[in-house]
Amino acid sequence: MKKEIEKSRVVPGGKFSLKDHDTSYTGTLEKEAGKAELDLSKEALVKLQERLYAADSHSILIIFQAMDAAGKDSAIAHVMSGLNPQGCQVYSFKTPTAEEYDHDFLWRHYKALPERGRIGIHNRSHYENVLVCKVHPEYVLNEKIPGYSNLKVIDDKFWKRRYESIRNFERHLSDNGTVVIKFFLNVSKEEQKERFLERIDNPAKNWKFSSSDITEREKWEDYMKAYEQAINETATEQAPWYVIPADKKWYARLLISQILEQHLKEMDLKFPVLAEEETAKLEEIQRALLLGG
Amino acid sequence: MKKEIEKSRVVPGGKFSLKDHDTSYTGTLEKEAGKAELDLSKEALVKLQERLYAADSHSILIIFQAMDAAGKDSAIAHVMSGLNPQGCQVYSFKTPTAEEYDHDFLWRHYKALPERGRIGIHNRSHYENVLVCKVHPEYVLNEKIPGYSNLKVIDDKFWKRRYESIRNFERHLSDNGTVVIKFFLNVSKEEQKERFLERIDNPAKNWKFSSSDITEREKWEDYMKAYEQAINETATEQAPWYVIPADKKWYARLLISQILEQHLKEMDLKFPVLAEEETAKLEEIQRALLLGG
Repeated sequence: MKKEIEKSRVVPGGKFSLKDHDTSYTGTLEKEAGKAELDLSKEALVKLQERLYAADSHSILIIFQAMDAAGKDSAIAHVMSGLNPQGCQVYSFKTPTAEEYDHDFLWRHYKALPERGRIGIHNRSHYENVLVCKVHPEYVLNEKIPGYSNLKVIDDKFWKRRYESIRNFERHLSDNGTVVIKFFLNVSKEEQKERFLERIDNPAKNWKFSSSDITEREKWEDYMKAYEQAINETATEQAPWYVIPADKKWYARLLISQILEQHLKEMDLKFPVLAEEETAKLEEIQRALLLGG
Repeated sequence: MKKEIEKSRVVPGGKFSLKDHDTSYTGTLEKEAGKAELDLSKEALVKLQERLYAADSHSILIIFQAMDAAGKDSAIAHVMSGLNPQGCQVYSFKTPTAEEYDHDFLWRHYKALPERGRIGIHNRSHYENVLVCKVHPEYVLNEKIPGYSNLKVIDDKFWKRRYESIRNFERHLSDNGTVVIKFFLNVSKEEQKERFLERIDNPAKNWKFSSSDITEREKWEDYMKAYEQAINETATEQAPWYVIPADKKWYARLLISQILEQHLKEMDLKFPVLAEEETAKLEEIQRALLLGG
């Protein structure tokens, strides 16, 4: 699926458009074959994570952004389920708390960055500050930024600075050993409707639906514009965006898994090699243990 | 002391040189008069801090950097002693912990940023990463940044990127309502010698002296070069550096206090004004209380 990975990766330069990305794409793959491939890819990921942990050189920050019901939570559950939780931290970001609002918008995300050797998954992320806040600029007022106490001053320049802050933040992380990988799960408005109806129909899924989801659905076009702009402004070589066709959950999961696999493979992580004297020491200990010491 | 404040402020543009800054400068001021002025300035600071807290719009990050025995700790103690500790947080940064080393070099400083309405004082700061690390590049290896496992690759480009990270970080803070003020306490090598000797002589001050201080003293010139470069690279309009003559402690304290006073005054902080209906409600409650309710 190298070709599909390449296609989903957004090329920096500002020419990304959602209309070039089919939400229901699955290529020539059938669902059953896709599921079998996902199992293989997950096995590969488990081994690669072991290396990441042992090499203790890089950390990985994986960002998931999407509209409601696009399958973020289930993708995280399915793709990451095999990983060793000791090396994997998931953070879900909800409405900021009062303490979080009392700091700049990156603060709560900065605190939650993964340690070296670990994978950090941010289910929603600092991008909400240029997505939901772009669609609802009144939310920016909650941040109480001096000089931004009314909607009139939240202009293009304001958003440009915000994109720049995000680019600089991710560049700094990348410079210091964090691999940043960003996924946008691209679901269609029709597919969202089906999933909403299912959530309402199915008592076991009721809890996942909130009536505010419908209000946001009404702003679908605004959200798509906000995503397009945010992705264009922040797609970089060091911190790439991948636009994942998400109408077919099985396909989205497979593509995400394979993208992660490719990134981890490219990092060419090695198990640390012991110095000769350390190896000698280990052999000595081994001898002593075998002799019943 | 407007002229002195202006002189101590480093103009962005890279032309700052330590040789233009007299470490023993006190102007025409005498010690006793200076102490009286400090008391006045501290009183003003207390009132301004009240406004900062009440306005709940900005936060202030004050950074102190200096060679050993330059008087950082005592300046913090003297200048800030009148402030309400509820609105003032001091962080002293020592050798990074294992958890801190497992993140990028800004992480521990980011976590410690002041909340809105508060003053955060960083006694040593993220600048150590371009100061002590510049003099001892071997310390950078402790950060285990991928690709930087030997001294040969820690080149000019590496330091340029690090200054840029710092500039971007401070710019982002400034954009989001944090006023960043940076002090370099500029002490002479001779004055440091006097203070070291006193620390050794005086049993009550012995604990402040460690033999490693002497090793660092031997690298005085390297440190001065590192300070000069770091200050040149990171002196910006939004996050200015002030070079404080520090041979006379009383003068350093006064200048610091007056600089803070000036910054807080320029922010033109206002006590929040209640909406008319809120005022009416308060008056109603007042009436009820007076009537013995």
